[in-house]
Amino acid sequence: MLSDLFGIGVVGYGYWGPNLARNFAAQPGGRLVAICDRDPKRLAQAALAHPSAETTPDYEALLRNPEIHAIAIATPVSHHFALAKAALLAGKDVFVEKPFTQTSAQGQELVTLAERKGRIIAVDHTFLYTGAVRKIKELVDAHALGDLLYFDSVRINLGLFQQDVDVVYDLAPHDLSILMHLVGNAPVCVRAMGARYGNNPQDCLAYLHLEYANGFVAHFHFSWLAPVKIRKTVIAGTDKMVVYDDLEQSEKVKIYDKGITIKSDADSVAKVKVDYRTGDMLAPKLEHREALAAEAAHFLQCVRDRETPLADGRAGLAVVRIIEAAEKSLREGGSRAQIAQG
Amino acid sequence: MLSDLFGIGVVGYGYWGPNLARNFAAQPGGRLVAICDRDPKRLAQAALAHPSAETTPDYEALLRNPEIHAIAIATPVSHHFALAKAALLAGKDVFVEKPFTQTSAQGQELVTLAERKGRIIAVDHTFLYTGAVRKIKELVDAHALGDLLYFDSVRINLGLFQQDVDVVYDLAPHDLSILMHLVGNAPVCVRAMGARYGNNPQDCLAYLHLEYANGFVAHFHFSWLAPVKIRKTVIAGTDKMVVYDDLEQSEKVKIYDKGITIKSDADSVAKVKVDYRTGDMLAPKLEHREALAAEAAHFLQCVRDRETPLADGRAGLAVVRIIEAAEKSLREGGSRAQIAQG
Amino acid sequence: MLSDLFGIGVVGYGYWGPNLARNFAAQPGGRLVAICDRDPKRLAQAALAHPSAETTPDYEALLRNPEIHAIAIATPVSHHFALAKAALLAGKDVFVEKPFTQTSAQGQELVTLAERKGRIIAVDHTFLYTGAVRKIKELVDAHALGDLLYFDSVRINLGLFQQDVDVVYDLAPHDLSILMHLVGNAPVCVRAMGARYGNNPQDCLAYLHLEYANGFVAHFHFSWLAPVKIRKTVIAGTDKMVVYDDLEQSEKVKIYDKGITIKSDADSVAKVKVDYRTGDMLAPKLEHREALAAEAAHFLQCVRDRETPLADGRAGLAVVRIIEAAEKSLREGGSRAQIAQG
Amino acid sequence: MLSDLFGIGVVGYGYWGPNLARNFAAQPGGRLVAICDRDPKRLAQAALAHPSAETTPDYEALLRNPEIHAIAIATPVSHHFALAKAALLAGKDVFVEKPFTQTSAQGQELVTLAERKGRIIAVDHTFLYTGAVRKIKELVDAHALGDLLYFDSVRINLGLFQQDVDVVYDLAPHDLSILMHLVGNAPVCVRAMGARYGNNPQDCLAYLHLEYANGFVAHFHFSWLAPVKIRKTVIAGTDKMVVYDDLEQSEKVKIYDKGITIKSDADSVAKVKVDYRTGDMLAPKLEHREALAAEAAHFLQCVRDRETPLADGRAGLAVVRIIEAAEKSLREGGSRAQIAQG
Repeated sequence: MLSDLFGIGVVGYGYWGPNLARNFAAQPGGRLVAICDRDPKRLAQAALAHPSAETTPDYEALLRNPEIHAIAIATPVSHHFALAKAALLAGKDVFVEKPFTQTSAQGQELVTLAERKGRIIAVDHTFLYTGAVRKIKELVDAHALGDLLYFDSVRINLGLFQQDVDVVYDLAPHDLSILMHLVGNAPVCVRAMGARYGNNPQDCLAYLHLEYANGFVAHFHFSWLAPVKIRKTVIAGTDKMVVYDDLEQSEKVKIYDKGITIKSDADSVAKVKVDYRTGDMLAPKLEHREALAAEAAHFLQCVRDRETPLADGRAGLAVVRIIEAAEKSLREGGSRAQIAQG
Repeated sequence: MLSDLFGIGVVGYGYWGPNLARNFAAQPGGRLVAICDRDPKRLAQAALAHPSAETTPDYEALLRNPEIHAIAIATPVSHHFALAKAALLAGKDVFVEKPFTQTSAQGQELVTLAERKGRIIAVDHTFLYTGAVRKIKELVDAHALGDLLYFDSVRINLGLFQQDVDVVYDLAPHDLSILMHLVGNAPVCVRAMGARYGNNPQDCLAYLHLEYANGFVAHFHFSWLAPVKIRKTVIAGTDKMVVYDDLEQSEKVKIYDKGITIKSDADSVAKVKVDYRTGDMLAPKLEHREALAAEAAHFLQCVRDRETPLADGRAGLAVVRIIEAAEKSLREGGSRAQIAQG
Repeated sequence: MLSDLFGIGVVGYGYWGPNLARNFAAQPGGRLVAICDRDPKRLAQAALAHPSAETTPDYEALLRNPEIHAIAIATPVSHHFALAKAALLAGKDVFVEKPFTQTSAQGQELVTLAERKGRIIAVDHTFLYTGAVRKIKELVDAHALGDLLYFDSVRINLGLFQQDVDVVYDLAPHDLSILMHLVGNAPVCVRAMGARYGNNPQDCLAYLHLEYANGFVAHFHFSWLAPVKIRKTVIAGTDKMVVYDDLEQSEKVKIYDKGITIKSDADSVAKVKVDYRTGDMLAPKLEHREALAAEAAHFLQCVRDRETPLADGRAGLAVVRIIEAAEKSLREGGSRAQIAQG
Repeated sequence: MLSDLFGIGVVGYGYWGPNLARNFAAQPGGRLVAICDRDPKRLAQAALAHPSAETTPDYEALLRNPEIHAIAIATPVSHHFALAKAALLAGKDVFVEKPFTQTSAQGQELVTLAERKGRIIAVDHTFLYTGAVRKIKELVDAHALGDLLYFDSVRINLGLFQQDVDVVYDLAPHDLSILMHLVGNAPVCVRAMGARYGNNPQDCLAYLHLEYANGFVAHFHFSWLAPVKIRKTVIAGTDKMVVYDDLEQSEKVKIYDKGITIKSDADSVAKVKVDYRTGDMLAPKLEHREALAAEAAHFLQCVRDRETPLADGRAGLAVVRIIEAAEKSLREGGSRAQIAQG
């Protein structure tokens, strides 16, 4: 019986919306009930691709539709807050594209509202559902890397310059969502140093440096202006170190049995001794399931069983807070910007 | 006739001194006259390897020896200043290991002294004499890269932790000497962010970020704590971008015919337009001559013809000034440290 | 006016047929008139994807249709001959999947028939339309590599074992079509050495070695049983050598300015002297157009202007002849099998 | 007491002799007693490097010297047989450069003589003592790869053309010694296909294909005429597959948990089923000891304890037999040449 399936409404059928619609439509536990977009041409495409779904420019129609249990929002980020708020007020769960919101105040309001209304927010941090990140998460959770030492990520390319957002806003959500998922507790401050060229008003090259209270650091290199494409992350612990190279075909995750042993002596700082050792390298087999399909399936499961998604509103908010602080630091030429906690 | 050759005295016969002695001894234009070290065992080794050279623990003997025209200093850095000053006062030219001096004040005093006495100082920035850096210098000097945009360098490894110096002091002189050689005019400030582990008193991971007055930036990642060895530098310009990978066997330098075109419009910031383009990649054939041999030969030529070495005292001083500022920034958690000019 | 466009009928809508239909439908100069398949389910899919095309299980209907000027055949190879022959007899041009035919006798008959009827045969050697092979072809035609010395190709993977054909039949058409396109004149004989495992009746690993009358050799390594995926071809000449790595993202073709100089002396074999030299490496920018789209466009152009496709019936026949000889050699354990000329 | 050490005499102090002398001199269990060479200049170099060893042009003096227990032969291969025979007749053990002898008849005679006289022959198959080959040998001996399927090796470069030997003679001993060490039982026949250029009388490119009685095959690609340097070997089994890349810095050996499962059905060939699977990849930590030092140490141990070296006379002979057969096949254009057994 169709009515046993969880009904999904998609709002925004531009760049990413079709992917969401296709993946939700393909889930056995879900039903794509309606697609909303202001643009008639896009609506026509949506109707062609999903003949059994309703198409409408009227977002209110989705909110009123009792067959829709959750709204997936794939509009420009400037609309996320209003659309998500309306959906939550209408009693719907929401699935929101990243970044979650434009400002952390908006994100905080949505988180509070969802908790008050008992609704689920999932933020589309797709990378968390890749085989690579899932494997690394397993390792970290099992303390297989030892004590974590640092996180270093490079995401560069000769990319399309965007007019309305800078390179941090464009690329950082990916890596920050991975960092927060793996390392968990929040960084306390960030420095961000960028570079612009000509009269281009947006930074096209940026370095972020995050500090944690326990001495852990995370560093990021983002660029639209590199001669080669690199997507490589190192997560180092005292026992093992992981290199995650997203451009590798078959060995995206390499676990190096390398680490350091710090023998500290309470009596004297001078007596510290650092040993290092090398060992095997293992590239584990990874799951090949498409990340977005796994994410859509998990969202439906969370909706059904009232569970918390891997990236809930708080996770989305945490990323927005770091970006907000980073943008402040960028404007101030690399000042130490505090990251709001909560 | 031997007396037509330029006589070299080497002081310090530990880790690097034997390489200097061997290379100066092998130059047709030079003669290795004497080797000085306080350690009798090292002196014995020196005598075995260079039977025709005098060996002595007495540095003054070298300074008094009229057959010695230049002194090559390969002692720990804490002795550089005193030994170089004495040599200059004795009328000798000097060749000093990097880093040039412990403090910029010492470096400045040596530069001033050498100029007053008409003596040559060469600092052993060996990388400048590699085929790779020479090729990149040619490109930069011919403006083949267009306007320079940024310099990004990664020099990481699971390296030996040192007790007395941090990773910046250990690794940065290589990359900073290359930066200064290629880009020339001096950076105005630096931020340095590091990380230590356990009770280890020295940073073993550090990021440096240099800013130039014209908007050019240089960024460095140094680490003793990485699972993989990387030695890769990108020098990007508006016309071409160079990737210099020192670990590549046969294609260390790759020139990407990629770049951006910035069309600015005086009337309006909003009208900026950034085009990017891709093109061929060329890996030019590089000279294979050993860098240190080329450097020794060039030093002898400079001594004979009273020319300026590729890295003279001012170049050595510039690197010391950046490291000094970086260490200050490190201590202050990434503050913007001004770099002394001159 | 639609009738000015060249009408295409596609027969076979299994694995590859949809790609042909899609590409022919997308060409401005062509019109996808009809799709034929015996399987009603596939026909329904065809109708969904191409609502304006006729769908029919009756091949004769395509042959009778005067709006269809050319037939594209994407059935299993065992049907190629009969379908292509009928199409030619009906006055249609044909586009045939590779390998052209099951036997060289069939291929020869089709070539003769097409010439007698003034019809065009194109064989779908898709690689010839890639930016990489087009670039190498330019170099070879301009004699930029000097005299060609050898061709060495490796196409291996842990691939799906097929029950009905061996690894030569599965993989060799790709590389042999590239070889014939680049080097042109025909090899005189082939040795093929394979290996099977267990009771598997088909070779899953094979090496082919082709000899040309002028001393040029071509060697191939095909495997379904390799731990890593490799698709790499070397084409070496006396002046330059090309490495074509189809798995490289951005630098598929590398041209090495390396070669040998053979100084022969008529008087004495003993006086031969071989010099070798190394030089720059260039990775030229390649066209990014999808190969199949370019191929479809070129076929329509050939149909319109009565030109010869890059891979005509003779080219298809030449590849079939080599495979036929290789299969004979395989059965005979590596005997020297003559390749029919013509 | 010096007389408790095993005395070594080295004959031939050209390209490789100095390495043997240095390594034997450095072994705690051995003493370098004498060095023999006809060339006075080389003898003078030997005397300089090894002042405590006797130097002489008279090989008989070594044979007569009771302090010499073993002779290491590093002359051109044409002298191996006569020198080794004389040494064995004089009651010395011998260590011979590879290839063991010029002909298999010579090799057979030495093997027989050594057995009759109770003397040890070691052939310098250095690769067997590398950490990489030792690790692979462990895996094969523990049946960790499952049933062995094939061995595929590529050793190519733009190398120096030699006037007196072809590329097979130059490069094949390395890979054949590894093959024989790992796989053990002897191949029954070989085909060799080469290519020459200009009037050069020697093949500079060759492919060897070896067949074993049990269906196992080994294939080799040797070249002095390649644009890139490759030294890569695949050893595949039904359970795992190993890739050994000698040019990798830190991960020379990669073990892929990939393989095939052949389910054969006695009733019917048609019912064969081949499954394949993929899994983890492991790059084990390898020993870093210099291969030649390990080999010299093991030779001295064998001399002392009368053990059999990893590569004894029979191993050396087996490689010579394959090369001999390969050269016959080369001359006959790729004929199937039987390999003598024994």
